[in-house]
Amino acid sequence: MSEEKKRPLILVVNDDGVFAKGIRALAEVMIDFGDVVLVAPDKPQSGMGHAVTLHDPIRLKKVLYEVPVSAAYSCSGTPVDAVKIAISRVLHRKPDLLVSGINHGANNSINVIYSGTMSAAIEGAVEDIPSIGFSLLDHSAEADFDASQDVVRTVVKNALEHGIPKGVCLNVNIPKGLKKDIHGIRVCTQARARWEEEFEERTDPAGKKYYWMTGEFRNLDDRDDCDEAVLRNNFVSVVPVHFDLTAYHTLPHFSQWKLQ
Amino acid sequence: MSEEKKRPLILVVNDDGVFAKGIRALAEVMIDFGDVVLVAPDKPQSGMGHAVTLHDPIRLKKVLYEVPVSAAYSCSGTPVDAVKIAISRVLHRKPDLLVSGINHGANNSINVIYSGTMSAAIEGAVEDIPSIGFSLLDHSAEADFDASQDVVRTVVKNALEHGIPKGVCLNVNIPKGLKKDIHGIRVCTQARARWEEEFEERTDPAGKKYYWMTGEFRNLDDRDDCDEAVLRNNFVSVVPVHFDLTAYHTLPHFSQWKLQ
Repeated sequence: MSEEKKRPLILVVNDDGVFAKGIRALAEVMIDFGDVVLVAPDKPQSGMGHAVTLHDPIRLKKVLYEVPVSAAYSCSGTPVDAVKIAISRVLHRKPDLLVSGINHGANNSINVIYSGTMSAAIEGAVEDIPSIGFSLLDHSAEADFDASQDVVRTVVKNALEHGIPKGVCLNVNIPKGLKKDIHGIRVCTQARARWEEEFEERTDPAGKKYYWMTGEFRNLDDRDDCDEAVLRNNFVSVVPVHFDLTAYHTLPHFSQWKLQ
Repeated sequence: MSEEKKRPLILVVNDDGVFAKGIRALAEVMIDFGDVVLVAPDKPQSGMGHAVTLHDPIRLKKVLYEVPVSAAYSCSGTPVDAVKIAISRVLHRKPDLLVSGINHGANNSINVIYSGTMSAAIEGAVEDIPSIGFSLLDHSAEADFDASQDVVRTVVKNALEHGIPKGVCLNVNIPKGLKKDIHGIRVCTQARARWEEEFEERTDPAGKKYYWMTGEFRNLDDRDDCDEAVLRNNFVSVVPVHFDLTAYHTLPHFSQWKLQ
């Protein structure tokens, strides 16, 4: 056996689809860190949350890819499906690292629960794989991922050197802008916020009504160390995210309940 | 103004579809507690997690319902869509209580993150609505919800009397069986567990491969007060669930990271 450290096996996923600009930008960085296999949805899956495909079969297709990764596949399911089928049918083992993104659009604050990008990373954490989701605060299909690639390099280097605590993945959000405009990287907390929806009513040619969801983001958190504040000040936000949803601090409340 | 307390406005949702046996059983109980409006998906949406419909319009249709609720609607989207459009376009205000289910199948432990039933309840909590998800550990379409209806009555009565802490919803899971077999109700914690997937390969008539997701649930938690243990002992489990995914306990770990 050589004493040289084996190159890590890295799974790259996203929710914007296998050919989105953001996942190509991510793959370009990751090939410097290890052997990269890409398995991503065959169509945009934004807002899919932690959905899994239970009632339909899943298709998996090898695709030609312009970034020189070891292999790239498109998958007909959700981002979480992509992680699961990648482990079971493509890699035939758990990868050493899972990176998801780079998402076109913010996934900080409450967006983490709606986000396909972050659900893929959370699924990785459930499987005990060191996992990181990256998102850029720019929805545009042609967004500039130049500064984001530097952020990916810094965060991945630290993750490989220092490890990510077990049961946790990272939610990394990157402000829009040039490298010189980004002031640094801050580990911080998920801001309390919500979307306030309106549903725009339209009428189809048959005279039947339908609705488009539109919404306005409302921040409800005034802490300096929440991700909303960190991003507003042009820092990159890094939130360690876990999947034990138990609200431990509220358990004493229930001693007054009469449950017998 | 009368001194009589106004009847609460109750939103009933689910992920198995508007005509599932479980949501009818839930509606039957809830009409004793207040004015009930039902808005639920027009087809099964199990495993939809916290998905929202961003790229398609949503249809809403008033349906005739055998339980005498104030109104019942089917909705073309996900369970979370149903909650959002119910508030915006049906109720025109937030309900006083949101109940989701009764799900045909378990949503305890890690299932909470994949569950459409629980995502609807979590969405309610995000919107500051007292919200409860109910699930029966029986997947059958013809499951017996008789014992479950008693559990719903007890939990809802307590929720209305004592309140649910802000930022929290309840994940209630009910063992399969007759009333006499259920030993009580326990407030407890989310068990650490995961699904280990296999993907069954098939070949379509055109000779192309496709995969069905199958999985085996693996409990990794040996605590007596986790929901897996509580249910195994034939108690109903009640886990208070929140949506701040920040892993606060891991924040000190990152002081060693070099992020500048």
